[in-house]
Amino acid sequence: MKGFGMLSINKSGWIEKEKPVCGPLDAIVHPTVLAPCSSDTHVFHGGSGEKSNLILGHEAVGKVVEVGNMVNNFKIGDTVVIPCTTPNWLSQNVQGEYNAHDEGLMKSFKFLGSKDGTFAEYFHVNQADANLVLLPENVLPEAAVMTVDMMSTGFHGVENANVSFGDTVVVIGIGPVGLMAVAGSKLRGAGRIIAIGTRPNCVAVAKEYGATDIVSYKEGDIVEQVMSLTHGGADSVIIAGGNVGSFKQAIDMTKPGGYISNVNFFDVSDTLAMPAYSWGMGMANKTIRGGFCPGGALRITKMLNMVANNRVDTTKLITHRFSGFEKIEDAFEIMDKKPSDLIKPVVFID
Amino acid sequence: MKGFGMLSINKSGWIEKEKPVCGPLDAIVHPTVLAPCSSDTHVFHGGSGEKSNLILGHEAVGKVVEVGNMVNNFKIGDTVVIPCTTPNWLSQNVQGEYNAHDEGLMKSFKFLGSKDGTFAEYFHVNQADANLVLLPENVLPEAAVMTVDMMSTGFHGVENANVSFGDTVVVIGIGPVGLMAVAGSKLRGAGRIIAIGTRPNCVAVAKEYGATDIVSYKEGDIVEQVMSLTHGGADSVIIAGGNVGSFKQAIDMTKPGGYISNVNFFDVSDTLAMPAYSWGMGMANKTIRGGFCPGGALRITKMLNMVANNRVDTTKLITHRFSGFEKIEDAFEIMDKKPSDLIKPVVFID
Amino acid sequence: MKGFGMLSINKSGWIEKEKPVCGPLDAIVHPTVLAPCSSDTHVFHGGSGEKSNLILGHEAVGKVVEVGNMVNNFKIGDTVVIPCTTPNWLSQNVQGEYNAHDEGLMKSFKFLGSKDGTFAEYFHVNQADANLVLLPENVLPEAAVMTVDMMSTGFHGVENANVSFGDTVVVIGIGPVGLMAVAGSKLRGAGRIIAIGTRPNCVAVAKEYGATDIVSYKEGDIVEQVMSLTHGGADSVIIAGGNVGSFKQAIDMTKPGGYISNVNFFDVSDTLAMPAYSWGMGMANKTIRGGFCPGGALRITKMLNMVANNRVDTTKLITHRFSGFEKIEDAFEIMDKKPSDLIKPVVFID
Amino acid sequence: MKGFGMLSINKSGWIEKEKPVCGPLDAIVHPTVLAPCSSDTHVFHGGSGEKSNLILGHEAVGKVVEVGNMVNNFKIGDTVVIPCTTPNWLSQNVQGEYNAHDEGLMKSFKFLGSKDGTFAEYFHVNQADANLVLLPENVLPEAAVMTVDMMSTGFHGVENANVSFGDTVVVIGIGPVGLMAVAGSKLRGAGRIIAIGTRPNCVAVAKEYGATDIVSYKEGDIVEQVMSLTHGGADSVIIAGGNVGSFKQAIDMTKPGGYISNVNFFDVSDTLAMPAYSWGMGMANKTIRGGFCPGGALRITKMLNMVANNRVDTTKLITHRFSGFEKIEDAFEIMDKKPSDLIKPVVFID
Repeated sequence: MKGFGMLSINKSGWIEKEKPVCGPLDAIVHPTVLAPCSSDTHVFHGGSGEKSNLILGHEAVGKVVEVGNMVNNFKIGDTVVIPCTTPNWLSQNVQGEYNAHDEGLMKSFKFLGSKDGTFAEYFHVNQADANLVLLPENVLPEAAVMTVDMMSTGFHGVENANVSFGDTVVVIGIGPVGLMAVAGSKLRGAGRIIAIGTRPNCVAVAKEYGATDIVSYKEGDIVEQVMSLTHGGADSVIIAGGNVGSFKQAIDMTKPGGYISNVNFFDVSDTLAMPAYSWGMGMANKTIRGGFCPGGALRITKMLNMVANNRVDTTKLITHRFSGFEKIEDAFEIMDKKPSDLIKPVVFID
Repeated sequence: MKGFGMLSINKSGWIEKEKPVCGPLDAIVHPTVLAPCSSDTHVFHGGSGEKSNLILGHEAVGKVVEVGNMVNNFKIGDTVVIPCTTPNWLSQNVQGEYNAHDEGLMKSFKFLGSKDGTFAEYFHVNQADANLVLLPENVLPEAAVMTVDMMSTGFHGVENANVSFGDTVVVIGIGPVGLMAVAGSKLRGAGRIIAIGTRPNCVAVAKEYGATDIVSYKEGDIVEQVMSLTHGGADSVIIAGGNVGSFKQAIDMTKPGGYISNVNFFDVSDTLAMPAYSWGMGMANKTIRGGFCPGGALRITKMLNMVANNRVDTTKLITHRFSGFEKIEDAFEIMDKKPSDLIKPVVFID
Repeated sequence: MKGFGMLSINKSGWIEKEKPVCGPLDAIVHPTVLAPCSSDTHVFHGGSGEKSNLILGHEAVGKVVEVGNMVNNFKIGDTVVIPCTTPNWLSQNVQGEYNAHDEGLMKSFKFLGSKDGTFAEYFHVNQADANLVLLPENVLPEAAVMTVDMMSTGFHGVENANVSFGDTVVVIGIGPVGLMAVAGSKLRGAGRIIAIGTRPNCVAVAKEYGATDIVSYKEGDIVEQVMSLTHGGADSVIIAGGNVGSFKQAIDMTKPGGYISNVNFFDVSDTLAMPAYSWGMGMANKTIRGGFCPGGALRITKMLNMVANNRVDTTKLITHRFSGFEKIEDAFEIMDKKPSDLIKPVVFID
Repeated sequence: MKGFGMLSINKSGWIEKEKPVCGPLDAIVHPTVLAPCSSDTHVFHGGSGEKSNLILGHEAVGKVVEVGNMVNNFKIGDTVVIPCTTPNWLSQNVQGEYNAHDEGLMKSFKFLGSKDGTFAEYFHVNQADANLVLLPENVLPEAAVMTVDMMSTGFHGVENANVSFGDTVVVIGIGPVGLMAVAGSKLRGAGRIIAIGTRPNCVAVAKEYGATDIVSYKEGDIVEQVMSLTHGGADSVIIAGGNVGSFKQAIDMTKPGGYISNVNFFDVSDTLAMPAYSWGMGMANKTIRGGFCPGGALRITKMLNMVANNRVDTTKLITHRFSGFEKIEDAFEIMDKKPSDLIKPVVFID
């Protein structure tokens, strides 16, 4: 079969491989709609170390073409939504509070570097009964494909930020995950939502999703701007972009007793600055959390339940639409280059 | 001064009293907009036992006419919003998880039976610095008066129901508090919201606030209807009306691991039926909470923050508007009679 | 193979069956130490409806005699501790907050009525990797067998009661689960622990586990006694025994803002009385939870971690020791008759 | 009246001042037992900036000598325990989740730099009804004086670390607060407790309080030692000492999904290193909290409830006992010099 991915670091291309083998608990899926993600380009540029002949991609809706003999709830022909995080549910590590670390740090994110991804004619999904969801009838496939990482991750940022009724929330970075964090903050009861970003199309969507204030790096120090708007700091700050300095800024602009929530992928070699002063010398009761989007079918079922009931329109994220399997290449390239009018591309396969 | 209230049980009328005395920490407020509540009529009919010559009312926006000498943050002439629950913040009982029980069960609800209420030329507010909020510039007084009990109580029901992203929520009863529970469920991330009620105007507002399904007692057993709609029970059920049987129904229609949240005022003499079967013989991990609207200035500040940022339009609750101090009587009477087109009346005093 | 159980309701005896079949994810275990439980006698007397030729038992330590070909972490000969609750971890229902209801209400408790239990030469454990734990070197098998239901369930009662530093906790019923709730309350930071019970040996163990006060039904109304000892109610009440009236008593003796936690097995046909008055007409912020002991390997690993570090001596529960496979019959009979000196029997098989 | 404190930075001595004035809500207390704290020496050396003629001290048990006319629950002659954190309960900032920041960051800690402290013949306590606790009959004054900061702060570290049944907990630093964190971890259900420290008397008390393993900086890298002991990291790490590098070490030695809790007073000018790698590039679901000991009477009532019921013996911390008001000077000096046999000194005044 054919797939698209990295031949080696910084070198992309089409790859010919055997169709993946289906274990007794698993499924093989053919993608019908998929989307590249900046995590794919992160791996492509060496973010997960040397990789060669690796098919990329982790966001997809597709058709089941094969199921293992121990799978009960899915059959060939089902149209399914695939979470980007697909834990091994038989690992004891998922029996605690989080399921993203089944065999170690972030190991439940199997499509990211540890096996071939969704940019292929066929891809493998472990433990189908626990990790697949039927596409609801009234949800568009392209709306669904936006839930599996963008929405689930952005909304996880909101959950970790403990956003409560009437809170003032800051979202640093308004790429697709940050925009979902804005939408999720509104749907979690935030009053004021301060979005930090500059791209005009992102700013426009941020406002549609509920941002009440826009702060730009171009108009001065963002901490000062937020402190001035909030008279003493925000109830919570979600880091969904920015740079290595955003962590310190987030601590600085949160009020005592507030929450800092990270969903940004820092670099393995970064050392973030944790400012003792604005952390109250360690005693300001500011809670700091960072997490990877939770995995499994229930999570995506809940996300789809919101889309199906018109609580959020995830298709506002989609700025570029491609048709045809071979257009994965173009979509990936545009994701990598990030032109200023891009939020998120999708590829319709069939 | 003049006030309106109960001369004795079931006998209402105007009462002449001394203007209340302002303690060092307190304020005296003149109402500018107020609203009667079914809790007022509950007391009027003897729900809190024998009372005579008691001025009723606990929902108001007003003007400060006097402040104690230890008050720092308010001054004569300020337009303020008054929470219906005004705890004594110096009681050790408010240092725990809840502040509604300062000197005992629900004793923080001072306007309900333990002192004269807001249906008067002047009323007393204890601990002004902790219990008063300035009316924000961009919030209408009638929108604000809907926050102090209706919105805060309905939203408390949502908080206690632990409504989370994508949940299916049932709201039993869609009077003003139930309608706010519907709006709050949407603003807490619910996917599907099943509202149980029959009055056409309430049904219409429920849909505007986010209800996706309407279930009526008139079309059969509500438990069966909910079980059929949800294929096994809701994630959470908020009791905001109904009758003594609603408690059992709520347990019955909640799935294992779900939440039942009560904001309905049961009668002191009621014994509710707790069904062992649907509670899993006590082991279904169904959590049951019931609570009174949290008190204090911070709570109402948060509610107003949502109104000011257009997260919810509380004025949709207002079906009847009266003008003039003497119209308190008419507003109270209509609240007591509850004609079928009533949701909530307000009285504009000046 | 041979097993002991119920031939029909109220008729016990030895049963000859085929050795259970091991699925690819499963294990077959031979018990080395086991214990009967009052839940077994509950089923025996018809608590789960008509059952015939059913092997009973759900508490055991044993030796692995067979593993499926997809099992990674266990091998023949391993000495293992078996949780009484063994969820199907591939069910989406365990991806929420609780794992006891995999295929419906309490369905994760597979040994209780839905398949043959541990009173046999061999028994079946589903999903071995997720549900088995190696017996730690420094933990006695009989100490371990007390963790799989008694300790885990009693401690779950403590968790659901939200016991916090310095709290005053009441435990209703001091059979083995109630005694574990006493021990768990101490290990969760309780100050005062009021144990309600009468049997002298249970009272003695309750004191050893940390009870500071003993209240007996024989000396008057227990609600009055607790209210008098606590001057207004306990922070939390754990129901671990008693009768159908204990639920109302628990609500009555909890202070506003407190917690009621049930781990008692009520009867399917019971209707408990929920008193509106002491529940604050539904508004006292008293939280009510009830739950079944959480399943899986991580849970029991944590329990064993406490035993291994001498945080609790679970063998204080053991009052009767039997040796030999055929003594299961005697142990079951004594569990059923509950002589006054019984807390918990164990049977050493080899 | 006479008091002991700082004449200026690094210059201590006796100070003559007017007896403090009692406001209507307040009390004036004469100390009977008190203890110096390293926070006092921190301020003494300039940690809170320039201060002159400031009486130090914030840990005391004493006798009420004067009460304001609005105080209801205390009278002259009462023996009281005084929390080190005494919030202004009329501030809206204490109506949220934390009460340590009434008028801004840590401003509820009034004895630390913002007014005269407890090393005086008389000291002032704001809002007596909310901030004072009667000394229970069966609690020694020196046991009580250890609760107001040492125990309450150490136990807050445990709460923020979310210590749960069976967890493996690391405590970095075993001075008096760290030792209380060890004791508190045991009383919160920890299985294994790894204490990091070297002083022989502290190590001995750590073991008495429940430490199962001792790790010393002298025997190699503490992260490596903990990782090797725990096979992949602890469930939670409490920072109660150490140095500016301890923060990074704590992140490094916590497993995915774990908790890091700080109660150490970092320096205002510190920048802590937050390692992206061991924080999972921001996505390891490691929660970081840091907090100041919660204030008010209820908190200390709960701590005293534990001491009164023999859950913890706080007097194990006391290594040096002084008698007489004038010995405050010696006690302060020994606190400042920290000889190797010191854990905590107390001074008995009368």
